Amino acid sequence: MRTSVSRGRARAVGENVSAADERWMRLAIAESLKGMHAGEGGPFGCVIVREGELVSKGHNRVISTNDPTAHAEVVALRRAARRLGRFDLSDCVLYASCEPCPMCLSAIYWARIRKVFFANTKRDAAKIGFADQFIYEELELPLERRKLQMVPLLRNEAVGAFVDWSRKADRVNY
Amino acid sequence: MRTSVSRGRARAVGENVSAADERWMRLAIAESLKGMHAGEGGPFGCVIVREGELVSKGHNRVISTNDPTAHAEVVALRRAARRLGRFDLSDCVLYASCEPCPMCLSAIYWARIRKVFFANTKRDAAKIGFADQFIYEELELPLERRKLQMVPLLRNEAVGAFVDWSRKADRVNY
Repeated sequence: MRTSVSRGRARAVGENVSAADERWMRLAIAESLKGMHAGEGGPFGCVIVREGELVSKGHNRVISTNDPTAHAEVVALRRAARRLGRFDLSDCVLYASCEPCPMCLSAIYWARIRKVFFANTKRDAAKIGFADQFIYEELELPLERRKLQMVPLLRNEAVGAFVDWSRKADRVNY
Repeated sequence: MRTSVSRGRARAVGENVSAADERWMRLAIAESLKGMHAGEGGPFGCVIVREGELVSKGHNRVISTNDPTAHAEVVALRRAARRLGRFDLSDCVLYASCEPCPMCLSAIYWARIRKVFFANTKRDAAKIGFADQFIYEELELPLERRKLQMVPLLRNEAVGAFVDWSRKADRVNY
């Protein structure tokens, strides 16, 4: 039976964690240290595993590549997808040294991954100055209350592309 | 004065839209059609503009590249960052043919963009089978109620990387 856990409190709920899980997480943590000390980006590492084997590793590379999307999880997801030759990574497990930010967490959903282990929390990340928690809060706000200005424009002209898609005979759903 | 707008309803609130904004949005819509009809991905396009000049364009390339993160906005953001040589795109405006999914919207926050125009809405995207709305809802749930299994593990071992970061003398904040 599931116990009630207050919103956002990270706690295992009847979860079995194996020695292998711990080993993979330690690799993700090592990755986080490596990237940070090399000056490549923030202290974040990620490992993706399939059937007990390493598929990819990644660490944050925002600073060294000037790519705002080069978070550890995105780097590892892109590498895993390239290596496996598919965007569907539903048979993979992801180990992140920190609870994924909303960008990375959404990328994990798009990749159809079903299980994520994480170590530091988004609140830990907020404490050392990262915007993860702020962005989570922004996403929950209605458009007109966000710090980011979001302006609807020409929906009537864009809808045609959606109609074309829904009628597309050789459509690949992702 | 701002009028009250119900949650998630996309509507301009006292917003000035210029002829140039419409032109850029039409380019984003054209991009969405181009990528879809070429079989590269879903019907999504994006344009990034700085001081009235085009910085980058992008369309969804999830299918052609097998990259689950290759959404139009992420593609355009990465290109813009590469072109400008910086991850901070706060002087840029982004035009998206559809309201950004949570991955793309978060990437926009990380890139520090302050203004986004969008045409189709996340509800329009849901109607033609995309998971945007589903992922927004998942992100708002406490961990233990999500479809994605999220398991805390070894936080005590990962915290050291965060301490190192907070003490790092040559830290670049992003």
